[in-house]
Amino acid sequence: MGGDHGPAVTVAGVDIATTTLQDVRFLLHGDADRINAELARYPAARAVSEVRHTDRAISMDEKPAQAMRRGKGSSVWNAIESVKAGEAGAAVSAGNTGALMAISMLILRMAEHINRPAIVASWPTSRGITAVLDVGANVESDAEQLVEFAIMGAAFHHAVHGSDRPTVGLLNVGSEEQKGHEEVRGAHALLRATSLDLDYHGFVEGNDIAKGTVDVIVTDGFTGNIALKTAEGLARFFADELRASFKSSVLSMLGAVFASGALGRMRKRMDPGAVNGGPLLGLNGIVVKSHGSADARGYAAAIRVAADLARSDFSAEIDRNMQRLTATLSQPAAAPVEGASE
Amino acid sequence: MGGDHGPAVTVAGVDIATTTLQDVRFLLHGDADRINAELARYPAARAVSEVRHTDRAISMDEKPAQAMRRGKGSSVWNAIESVKAGEAGAAVSAGNTGALMAISMLILRMAEHINRPAIVASWPTSRGITAVLDVGANVESDAEQLVEFAIMGAAFHHAVHGSDRPTVGLLNVGSEEQKGHEEVRGAHALLRATSLDLDYHGFVEGNDIAKGTVDVIVTDGFTGNIALKTAEGLARFFADELRASFKSSVLSMLGAVFASGALGRMRKRMDPGAVNGGPLLGLNGIVVKSHGSADARGYAAAIRVAADLARSDFSAEIDRNMQRLTATLSQPAAAPVEGASE
Repeated sequence: MGGDHGPAVTVAGVDIATTTLQDVRFLLHGDADRINAELARYPAARAVSEVRHTDRAISMDEKPAQAMRRGKGSSVWNAIESVKAGEAGAAVSAGNTGALMAISMLILRMAEHINRPAIVASWPTSRGITAVLDVGANVESDAEQLVEFAIMGAAFHHAVHGSDRPTVGLLNVGSEEQKGHEEVRGAHALLRATSLDLDYHGFVEGNDIAKGTVDVIVTDGFTGNIALKTAEGLARFFADELRASFKSSVLSMLGAVFASGALGRMRKRMDPGAVNGGPLLGLNGIVVKSHGSADARGYAAAIRVAADLARSDFSAEIDRNMQRLTATLSQPAAAPVEGASE
Repeated sequence: MGGDHGPAVTVAGVDIATTTLQDVRFLLHGDADRINAELARYPAARAVSEVRHTDRAISMDEKPAQAMRRGKGSSVWNAIESVKAGEAGAAVSAGNTGALMAISMLILRMAEHINRPAIVASWPTSRGITAVLDVGANVESDAEQLVEFAIMGAAFHHAVHGSDRPTVGLLNVGSEEQKGHEEVRGAHALLRATSLDLDYHGFVEGNDIAKGTVDVIVTDGFTGNIALKTAEGLARFFADELRASFKSSVLSMLGAVFASGALGRMRKRMDPGAVNGGPLLGLNGIVVKSHGSADARGYAAAIRVAADLARSDFSAEIDRNMQRLTATLSQPAAAPVEGASE
């Protein structure tokens, strides 16, 4: 059991999750002595957990290729194996993302019709939660892969954030038809040409993310990763500046004391930890990444994402939409992969 | 004279600029009656301005191709022509960005050795100002173009933000050599192989922007535009949430009153208006874009950027570095455009 904090946080997270999730049981893979020591402090967690010992772990800086060659028998490996064997309905890990992705692809394989996996981020916005994908499983994506992301993101938003018919936008540098590079214009044309169980909105821009213009925003993994990390950096900068402002005079310190309740609620609402849990989509099985630095509450949120996905119609929904996409792609005339030119 | 507010803001901006800039004179292109009406209110601006009348203007929603065909004689066109003719040392516009870029390229042409222009954003960070480019002149960039951006961005930061030997980072999804797509790894190899008048730091990630890890961050125009607009959206979201928090109770309203001085200083420090002025780099002449919604203070900041560039050794600096890059590229063995593979 990994992440920056080890079993102390993950077991405490299981304990929080058991208070709101009915009928969920846990297989805890890792160092049995350390896990049992934590379980002794959390009787509710202990009552629904079974410990599977291994003394092998993949470190946070291990390369994906190394992890695939040498990871057999590690806690992550065993957790994914338990999903493949049908013992577990989903796996949750706070460990090394690259290793988790590589081992998941190796053991679970890609789902039928899906070419590439994607990592989703749940982004707090002024209207709720927007799912942004891909945020780092790939560095490049062609038009067809972007449409796969749209389909998987919509199924995710429906299963986890409860939208009936998710609205989907393609991230671009403008909203006009002729904007952007070939891949994004091709995906736009495909989404327009295919009748999918989702509400395609068209192009959106970077400022539409925080506005919550749509439920799902689709982009390639390079752009998505940079947008997400840019936002994380900016959020930290704001928090630091706000703290410094309040400390700048006696009067402003007094102001901070008076406003502390409201500011605390705001921080909680905007805290990525409260919407933790980024699934790796596109595999034969459910795998959810928890942020390495998440606290117990954040880890519990990732568990809830895994449980929501495991109990949903998620895979069947993706399958239905993928069959429609395949039908569009097999009709040469109806599959314009070039966007309109000016 | 354009932008969302017309001559009211631009003339007021000229007035502010004259208080801090010595020996700068202005040619004001646009509707003479409207401009003169504003100049009557600002004697200091009137004393250093000459009005050049035209009743033609390019609207904010005109397409670049249309603007090139039909823009002759418009205020933007005439301003760029005055740079070409040597009457003006630089042009500043708050109008339509696409049209400004197209007309500037048509009239001024690209500078020698430079393949593609770039738009720079000056980004407030916890350490000062980081120049990010390209933020929207291009949708794709190859390795050599990314290196051009590095060279132009360093010359800009030196001229406008005063760094002696700017540090430059390439925006990527990780800091290891094998990360990212071919273009970014190729640019990394070229920057390592060429001895340039700048301090190449290596790869940086999205969260390094707000941290101020480096003076200049280089990326393609698609990713840069999305990162910038994502940040603008988040900044607005943050300001809205802060306002709502302060209004949520009598106690927090009181807190806001006590802290208002400190919060006002913070807003000012983080306000993109205070660092307004995005030059279009790579042309035979200086053209600076002011944000369409900038106020007079913001417009004055854009004028200052134009004046700093016009008075600097900017173009010669770019030229020297471009000659070194050309030398590297002409030695086949020393020009590895592929990054190291894993």
